[in-house]
Amino acid sequence: MEHTYAVIMAGGGGTRLWPVSRREKPKQLLPLLGKETLFQGTVARLEKLFPPERILVVTVEEQAREMRDQVPSIPEENYLIEPSPRGTASVVALAAAVLKKRDPQAIMAIQTADHHIRNKDLFHYLVRTAFDVAQKGYLVTLGITPTFPATGYGYIQQGEALEGDYKYPVFTVRRFKEKPDEATAQQLLRSGDHSWNSGMFVWHVDAILAEIEKQMPDLYAAVNKIASVWDTPDRKEVIRNIWYGLKTQTIDYGIMERAEKVAVLPAGGLGWSDVGSWDSLFEVLLPDMNGNVSTNAQHLGLDTHNTLVYSDDEKRLVVTIGLDDMVVVDTGEILMICKVDQSQKVKDVVEHLKKHHQEKYL
Amino acid sequence: MEHTYAVIMAGGGGTRLWPVSRREKPKQLLPLLGKETLFQGTVARLEKLFPPERILVVTVEEQAREMRDQVPSIPEENYLIEPSPRGTASVVALAAAVLKKRDPQAIMAIQTADHHIRNKDLFHYLVRTAFDVAQKGYLVTLGITPTFPATGYGYIQQGEALEGDYKYPVFTVRRFKEKPDEATAQQLLRSGDHSWNSGMFVWHVDAILAEIEKQMPDLYAAVNKIASVWDTPDRKEVIRNIWYGLKTQTIDYGIMERAEKVAVLPAGGLGWSDVGSWDSLFEVLLPDMNGNVSTNAQHLGLDTHNTLVYSDDEKRLVVTIGLDDMVVVDTGEILMICKVDQSQKVKDVVEHLKKHHQEKYL
Repeated sequence: MEHTYAVIMAGGGGTRLWPVSRREKPKQLLPLLGKETLFQGTVARLEKLFPPERILVVTVEEQAREMRDQVPSIPEENYLIEPSPRGTASVVALAAAVLKKRDPQAIMAIQTADHHIRNKDLFHYLVRTAFDVAQKGYLVTLGITPTFPATGYGYIQQGEALEGDYKYPVFTVRRFKEKPDEATAQQLLRSGDHSWNSGMFVWHVDAILAEIEKQMPDLYAAVNKIASVWDTPDRKEVIRNIWYGLKTQTIDYGIMERAEKVAVLPAGGLGWSDVGSWDSLFEVLLPDMNGNVSTNAQHLGLDTHNTLVYSDDEKRLVVTIGLDDMVVVDTGEILMICKVDQSQKVKDVVEHLKKHHQEKYL
Repeated sequence: MEHTYAVIMAGGGGTRLWPVSRREKPKQLLPLLGKETLFQGTVARLEKLFPPERILVVTVEEQAREMRDQVPSIPEENYLIEPSPRGTASVVALAAAVLKKRDPQAIMAIQTADHHIRNKDLFHYLVRTAFDVAQKGYLVTLGITPTFPATGYGYIQQGEALEGDYKYPVFTVRRFKEKPDEATAQQLLRSGDHSWNSGMFVWHVDAILAEIEKQMPDLYAAVNKIASVWDTPDRKEVIRNIWYGLKTQTIDYGIMERAEKVAVLPAGGLGWSDVGSWDSLFEVLLPDMNGNVSTNAQHLGLDTHNTLVYSDDEKRLVVTIGLDDMVVVDTGEILMICKVDQSQKVKDVVEHLKKHHQEKYL
């Protein structure tokens, strides 16, 4: 595993987990699943494969301080700070350019800070295999075998099996597909040759930089310029001058969809979740015999079923009587109680609060 | 209204409004209906009829301090402190004996500290009429015209109309009835001649003390002995020596059921509530067009109906999505969410907490 690195993308926000996920405290920095935050969980998962000095974090200044507090093991120079988010294409390009300067043979595994993986052993196995494939010059994606017709993820269609002595099935990629509608998602689920795009990638810095140079030459020039002054006093000024001119783009749309040598490892049973909505916590945490899950709260439920109780105050006693299929979120100055199948309406609440100038609750 | 006094009984506890009503903070000291506590509301209602120096409060030491803070207008000597609760018979007897020493012509209106009355003008009208009836030597009860077959209240059956020039219909009392079962309550509701026993009484001190002497001679002797030393340094010692020997008894069972000259004013439309359970708040507070009521909390309800939201933190934003017929109580270290028709299970929770030695939540 020499020359291998992990790069954690950790700049995002998002409102789907409001009111816990807030502007100044995004999802990855919260102990959504218990004592550990998603960011801490991501680092812990990676530390089985990488020493801390080979784990990089790309984030924004507002989040970096909290991250350093949560994970003091990662050295300061491994935090790559974006002046502002410009999409995952810029994140990947910056990390690849900086890494290449440090280690021209670097192979990097891209991770997101706010996902959860239950089966860590399988994850480590997959990443090790992906490094072998990346050594051959492939851009490797970790695909997730679909378990329901999700409309919230992009899909990857696999092609033929890749020749080679790999310890896990590897396929070429036929096509990337954007988030489908419900009917298409049903087809893709049944097709048997489509995986969810998890946003986890493994590649050699040369391979990804070659694609960036071809498909996004402006970005390529920009990150090279930034990387050339990274270890000099000019870094701050150069990055500021360049960064705000970059166009916001995802790595999937900007690079992967038209890239040439792409492979996929379709993983079933990984227990992967993007922890993207309140009801997704039911999948990640293990419900008790009544179907209830609770995080941090002391929950006393009478005649209560399929109900999630989250509190950020361990001393809080949450008593529920006669509740079914509910999400209870008790955090700071906000209490939210929501029928599970209506949890997508959280964004309506966020819109309402914006409209009525109650930004303090956002 | 010379020689008229109000006596507020304020010693009680009770768990039906847990988790807001707690051991150290009983119902009457809480702002259950808004900014004002039930005790403050009771005093405000009485101050239209009585100057503060003619309002007395019978309570226990643990509650007296908070009461003085909440209502500074009542003079210190008007707080009659029981060493421990011994039922309403002892409360009434003590107040009557002490009042008689201060004013032998005193007529007293007994009130409870933790009830709510919406129609205050009618209340004042009734009390004034009751004073006229009490002047004739009657023990007067204010009855409440039943609006549903309640099994939680005692009932009063009226007899013939009382002769006299009263400004409101007055009847003799045929019988007091203890809390009935459901079938009996249905009959009583339909009978047309039964009122709920509200626990509000008006009488001359001589009239009630004569009944106490006859029916509870030990209590009579005890309160006379206490009253004789009330304004001396011996008060504390004498009351302590006597009080714990008193048997616990209600005024209804101990005196009223067998008293001779009893009258009732059956009041309809008073908007009276004993605020005895969470769902009773729906009757007291006025629901909005979706049937929701909220106290203190900022409530933002989407697709939410017939739901009560109580918070003791005005800054708290309570968001509900897809809730029907719920009670949400957010107080200090406890959050309770309960289906309205299961709110009687609150006492099961209290039992559970006792059994598991979680007294701090009681």
